[in-house]
Amino acid sequence: MNREFMLAALEEAKKALLKGEVPVGAVIVKDGKIIARGHNRREERNNALSHAETEAIYEACNVLGSWRLDGCSMYVTLEPCPMCAGAILTSRIKEVYFGAYDEKYGCFGSAVTMNFPGGFQTPRIIGGYMTDFCEGLLRDFFKGLRK
Amino acid sequence: MNREFMLAALEEAKKALLKGEVPVGAVIVKDGKIIARGHNRREERNNALSHAETEAIYEACNVLGSWRLDGCSMYVTLEPCPMCAGAILTSRIKEVYFGAYDEKYGCFGSAVTMNFPGGFQTPRIIGGYMTDFCEGLLRDFFKGLRK
Repeated sequence: MNREFMLAALEEAKKALLKGEVPVGAVIVKDGKIIARGHNRREERNNALSHAETEAIYEACNVLGSWRLDGCSMYVTLEPCPMCAGAILTSRIKEVYFGAYDEKYGCFGSAVTMNFPGGFQTPRIIGGYMTDFCEGLLRDFFKGLRK
Repeated sequence: MNREFMLAALEEAKKALLKGEVPVGAVIVKDGKIIARGHNRREERNNALSHAETEAIYEACNVLGSWRLDGCSMYVTLEPCPMCAGAILTSRIKEVYFGAYDEKYGCFGSAVTMNFPGGFQTPRIIGGYMTDFCEGLLRDFFKGLRK
């Protein structure tokens, strides 16, 4: 666990915010170093696959030259949606720290719990890590939208 | 419903097979026309995101210039895994025809049922469509691996 990594994910989230995107950011860490970063750019890219986590996974696979992200940890500011939770399982990320809980779409316990007996190994999940920072950013964004 | 669309998805699956990939193929249809195709190329691209469905969704978003695939149907030879089922929900595909059931990873009823009350609208799901063709292709592939 390392606060710096979540702060880096928050920096990514701020990049999304500056583009008017829902502010979510993620980093992937291997052997104590950040190897990939991503932020939500669904509107910018007009692409449903361009969430923070999938952007980071795409980059990490390129960096490692493998679809298996064994030994990698993800730090992400929001609890992953089903697509991103699935991408985390299928890429074999070993642990996930997430900030804000997502009661509506979160797939690591809030809306759905992903459980595949005899299938994927479930990563270690640490929810609510540095949640105040992560929630604050999202709250401010949605408050701005309602103005 | 149209057999031609599943046959086109099977053609995609055969492209994967020829590359030594798990043979899964998908097409996306809008207004009675195929607008995007995809096949599993996870090994070829060394990328965890390169499943048949996500490849097709990526292309369909590019074709339509939007992350919202409203009014689109997907035909896919295998029941979608969590990542792909999530990508289908988040891109708002309205219906999915899938061929073979996947007891281990399938997220439209077999291993997990995706249900998000107050969240995503669940697409119309038609499972087991032309299942013999789709299962046969997968069975032959895995039989070959065990030889």
